[in-house]
Amino acid sequence: MPDYANLEFLFHPNSIALAGITVTNPEHWTRTFLDSLLEFRFERPLYLVNPKGGEIKGLKVYQSLADVPNTIDYVISLVPARVAPGLVEECAGKGVKAIHFCTAGFSETGEEEGIKLEAKVAELGRKKGIRIVGPNCMGVYCPESRISFQSNFPKERGTVGFISQSGGNAVDIVNQVMWRGIRFSKVISYGNACDLNESDFLEYFTADPNTKAIAMYIEGTKDGRRFRQTLQKAASKKPVILLKGGVTESGARAVAGHTGALAGSEAVWDSLCRQLGVIRVDSLEEMGDILVTLLFLPMPKGRRMALIGGGGGASVLITDEFEKKGLKVPSLPQEIRERIREFTPAAGNILRNPIDYSQTMIEPGKLARTVGIISNWDGIDFLMGFMRPTLAAASIRGRMAEMIDEMLEGSRQGSKQIGLVIEPSTLAQEAKEIFPIIQKCVSLGLSVYYSFAGAASAISLVLSHYERHPSAPRIYRVH
Amino acid sequence: MPDYANLEFLFHPNSIALAGITVTNPEHWTRTFLDSLLEFRFERPLYLVNPKGGEIKGLKVYQSLADVPNTIDYVISLVPARVAPGLVEECAGKGVKAIHFCTAGFSETGEEEGIKLEAKVAELGRKKGIRIVGPNCMGVYCPESRISFQSNFPKERGTVGFISQSGGNAVDIVNQVMWRGIRFSKVISYGNACDLNESDFLEYFTADPNTKAIAMYIEGTKDGRRFRQTLQKAASKKPVILLKGGVTESGARAVAGHTGALAGSEAVWDSLCRQLGVIRVDSLEEMGDILVTLLFLPMPKGRRMALIGGGGGASVLITDEFEKKGLKVPSLPQEIRERIREFTPAAGNILRNPIDYSQTMIEPGKLARTVGIISNWDGIDFLMGFMRPTLAAASIRGRMAEMIDEMLEGSRQGSKQIGLVIEPSTLAQEAKEIFPIIQKCVSLGLSVYYSFAGAASAISLVLSHYERHPSAPRIYRVH
Repeated sequence: MPDYANLEFLFHPNSIALAGITVTNPEHWTRTFLDSLLEFRFERPLYLVNPKGGEIKGLKVYQSLADVPNTIDYVISLVPARVAPGLVEECAGKGVKAIHFCTAGFSETGEEEGIKLEAKVAELGRKKGIRIVGPNCMGVYCPESRISFQSNFPKERGTVGFISQSGGNAVDIVNQVMWRGIRFSKVISYGNACDLNESDFLEYFTADPNTKAIAMYIEGTKDGRRFRQTLQKAASKKPVILLKGGVTESGARAVAGHTGALAGSEAVWDSLCRQLGVIRVDSLEEMGDILVTLLFLPMPKGRRMALIGGGGGASVLITDEFEKKGLKVPSLPQEIRERIREFTPAAGNILRNPIDYSQTMIEPGKLARTVGIISNWDGIDFLMGFMRPTLAAASIRGRMAEMIDEMLEGSRQGSKQIGLVIEPSTLAQEAKEIFPIIQKCVSLGLSVYYSFAGAASAISLVLSHYERHPSAPRIYRVH
Repeated sequence: MPDYANLEFLFHPNSIALAGITVTNPEHWTRTFLDSLLEFRFERPLYLVNPKGGEIKGLKVYQSLADVPNTIDYVISLVPARVAPGLVEECAGKGVKAIHFCTAGFSETGEEEGIKLEAKVAELGRKKGIRIVGPNCMGVYCPESRISFQSNFPKERGTVGFISQSGGNAVDIVNQVMWRGIRFSKVISYGNACDLNESDFLEYFTADPNTKAIAMYIEGTKDGRRFRQTLQKAASKKPVILLKGGVTESGARAVAGHTGALAGSEAVWDSLCRQLGVIRVDSLEEMGDILVTLLFLPMPKGRRMALIGGGGGASVLITDEFEKKGLKVPSLPQEIRERIREFTPAAGNILRNPIDYSQTMIEPGKLARTVGIISNWDGIDFLMGFMRPTLAAASIRGRMAEMIDEMLEGSRQGSKQIGLVIEPSTLAQEAKEIFPIIQKCVSLGLSVYYSFAGAASAISLVLSHYERHPSAPRIYRVH
């Protein structure tokens, strides 16, 4: 079993070669890696290799790895599956420490040829002392060493490590949470795992001082015993969130066609996570909501909350969503309501909790004052604001940014945390208006959720996790 | 109990007066109604009334209802609660058939003054023979008579009737589903229901020939017996979808502060819906998904489906979502796979179902052919395509519109219905690209869902509904 430190060469290589990059067609998928490395300004030697030779964007294309004038640390292989074993042989002569095989066509086909090719690649790697990532995956995203497999990923380093058997799901989660303030220490998409596998990466991320929380999308494991041990250790050191793909019969068949992994039964995975204190989620959306909660709403002491937002019908629905998940929305006592009524026109019932802010935000400062009074009440553990910008009257929509400031100010008066549900829009015109509001919240370090149900589900899941495992590791605002 | 036909005057008034509209401030909320009626080109006499008189957008403002030179059918009241009873008296002299009281400050405050005012308004209405909508609500949206309470609502008439105790939730549902092809016959937001109530509207919508399906957001009822009878009759004639607000303890308190209704217990509502064959949903998002399913994916004969889309990780997750909800994703038989392999490079496992279309769409026509072969297999009841446009390679993103055409063409070869999950984006730039793809699907009459879980949940719920109630009314493609 390799020491975790051995994987530093993957995330901090001294040089990279892109083997099999297409020279003629700039739209070809093999160009994604070059485009990303250039966009990220990868600072160390970068070599392009294709038997045709030539030049891409001013960079020389070598006709073979052997032609590269130096040793190479890390090779991203874009060659077809059938020539993969040959590439491993070539790499052996260049001091290569790791090859990331991007292309598919290996064991996931379920066909003899692909299975044999993959076994050959793994065997050659072992023999030559070269570690293999993949095949059939996107490889490494590591902002601190300026490596990425997508041009649009954030360039700043963060605190979340993501281990994903699927490249698409890795892209999805990074894209999804980048707009909610989450940044990554490292992301690894590792596909068929013919050599380096989930346990290797989990061990490395557990030890990595720059990774404060670990998220995983995993389709299966070939060594359940080792994975269990690794997961147990990981969960004892850092919060671990796990999405298991292939939990149903046909889902498991889809896994076989995707990464060739053995999916394992739902019951096994469920009890594993419960026992080890791993936060298990059911979808990528839920994974995003959990990350936001762990990082930006980390410490409510309990389940009692105040809800403050706009709209009577919305108030009813969000209250139902939270209470269905076991949160408590206690009625504000008479004394608190009286204090708010001293300076607002709000009528009685509206102030019981949930609180309709349209009654308390008419003049600047009143919303902060209202939230401050509520936040100082020891009957609640945290606050949640909610906004449906597309439904709000123009008078409210124009003041949303200030209202967010006021809510945050008020919550701080009582040292209570506050989260926010802001319903986004999928219409370009509306998105243009709402998106900056969400970004403002993110820049203030607030946890932003996109739906009532998503917020309720994630917050309840995190609370349950720490109720069941009181000494489980926590992550604070360290992004 | 009034005959349903009596409510025609609400939805097809011969004239409307806006009482209490603000003359000076064009941004004031009371202007919403005028703006909407002008945008919709309401064709019949429209009178503005405010004691200050003057003119708005070239329309004379009368100083009192009495000054209006004709009788008035329908009054939208924007006056403060305390002068509401006086308005009812004034209306009596002008032949008014119904008043919609928009403003709040009545029984929902929980305070004596508001409760008394509402009782007074209801009593005066009864005495004078004037029906009351509200108070504390948005009133009528009826595209065929060019009445709306929002300027941006669709002007075309549709087939869904929506009865909503909340104005905000009515706006939310219309906005949400308009981009997915749903149009409304009528929407009524009825608030505190001091006179006309949920049962009146439900009776009317049950009889209304232009309403093919009924959706309800309801917070409570004051006459459970009548509502039960009315609901039973409605559900025997048309599909009825119900979202009950205030199903939790604090949710019920929120209801009291919103519309003053008595919420009733969760168990009562649940058994009511099950017994009567009403489709009960938990959120507005789910209501939207159910409407889309009923209207645009109306007749799968069973739970067996083929999944066709892009991405290995996505394939795994969507398969899990559907099977978790009791759908079946059967493996394609060898013979079918062989036929697809004759003209595509697709390797074995990828073609088992789910099917990764990136292997079968390389040349025009191949995706249609693939889907056609699958659609002709009698081992499935319907098809579902899935796309994550933000993750797709440029080569696929540029061809999405054609791919949708090909999938639809293929599905028709086997006379199977097809639905689509297309993940939208909340970023303005991406929304601009993805939104037209969604609109293309909608224009083709396809059911579009925004998430794997949403699609799975809605389709399963509709299938379960018809499994439990085989003779329950159905709605076909009649929009």
